Amino acid sequence: MSGKIEIKKKVLSENDRIASEIREKLSRNKILTLNLVSSPGSGKTSLLERTLKQLGDKFNMAVIAGDVQTENDAERLARAGGKIVRPLLTGGACHLDARMVNRVLNEIDIDRLDILFIENVGNLVCPAGYDLGEDMKVVLISTTEGDDKPLKYPAMFRRSSVLVVNKIDLLGLSNFDPEKVKKNALAVNPEFIIMDVSCRTHEGLDRWYSWLSGAVNNKREAKMAEPKG
Amino acid sequence: MSGKIEIKKKVLSENDRIASEIREKLSRNKILTLNLVSSPGSGKTSLLERTLKQLGDKFNMAVIAGDVQTENDAERLARAGGKIVRPLLTGGACHLDARMVNRVLNEIDIDRLDILFIENVGNLVCPAGYDLGEDMKVVLISTTEGDDKPLKYPAMFRRSSVLVVNKIDLLGLSNFDPEKVKKNALAVNPEFIIMDVSCRTHEGLDRWYSWLSGAVNNKREAKMAEPKG
Repeated sequence: MSGKIEIKKKVLSENDRIASEIREKLSRNKILTLNLVSSPGSGKTSLLERTLKQLGDKFNMAVIAGDVQTENDAERLARAGGKIVRPLLTGGACHLDARMVNRVLNEIDIDRLDILFIENVGNLVCPAGYDLGEDMKVVLISTTEGDDKPLKYPAMFRRSSVLVVNKIDLLGLSNFDPEKVKKNALAVNPEFIIMDVSCRTHEGLDRWYSWLSGAVNNKREAKMAEPKG
Repeated sequence: MSGKIEIKKKVLSENDRIASEIREKLSRNKILTLNLVSSPGSGKTSLLERTLKQLGDKFNMAVIAGDVQTENDAERLARAGGKIVRPLLTGGACHLDARMVNRVLNEIDIDRLDILFIENVGNLVCPAGYDLGEDMKVVLISTTEGDDKPLKYPAMFRRSSVLVVNKIDLLGLSNFDPEKVKKNALAVNPEFIIMDVSCRTHEGLDRWYSWLSGAVNNKREAKMAEPKG
């Protein structure tokens, strides 16, 4: 099995090399780049729909919408007003990698772009291992999923910078404890920025929009970001 | 990259060999074996809790509770009355494989067992590729996840025999369309057995229990099962 490990290391270091190139290119252009990760159905696409509608006049935003199959998400995001939305189908693979992202990125005009969202495949495990050149990972969890997920999938929560707890309009309809999820999340990642939102009722989204605006400003003023290891 | 593909093929054929041994051993003992798969938080553990409580007097059941980290699920299942519950931690891996299952299985006394449940890692992608020696895969989806999941993760839905749509008590609180999920599921797998349930309110669970009882009887009378390709 050592052959397998050798090759995996080689693939990952090749991924890291391409991710560094992406990071350098996007940072040179002062583009805030967020890698959105979660279970299937936590609301990555819904959060992006809201964001494209709300901030479409303020920022130039592009989305790379990753999926195993179907361009459903990309179509939803274009309908929500997304001007630059590119589907990225993995054709079976359980995560995006930097090579895939780079291929799509080369077809996007990044001049005057403020934000690039990369919507990863719905999977709380595998995408944690692949740097895509992003500034930060934003992990979503919905209140219907169970408050112990940060402990059960620690790598993803440790490597993310922002935790968006979605579907808070459904609180009380399951035994999900919003305080417990925060405690569990902070146990694996004490620096987490945590926001409660409902993409359905819009509750809490103002904080997300204002955090995002602040992050764009920071990016414009900042030096190059380092990946969170 | 051909080296990677070669090794992957070798790993998979080694997995298939062990899975066949597991299938033969369990079928010889007439044990119905179900591999439960879903996104994180769809309700695999909740369904098993209900089942252990409801059918604990009728059947001898064992659970292998797979997870990336934590023994939370195994503890919940033991509290629900599970007499034979074994945690199986992957320590980071995104799926169970036959070798892991076999190791745990060797420590379980399978005499007089009626049902073995294998609760897979919460992941709609990777576990689809690994035969564990089960009779069938049971895939869960919850009504808060989005009704296009069968199209977006087709491999998992195609390789499963039973679809349990959970959390139907939350219907109407999202734009999940129960007819659409069925249409999408049957499009990728026309032979699906589909059941609507709520593990929270118990609605629809009688059908699950009676399907399960029928499957145990079929197993007692049947010849050896073949994996669903």
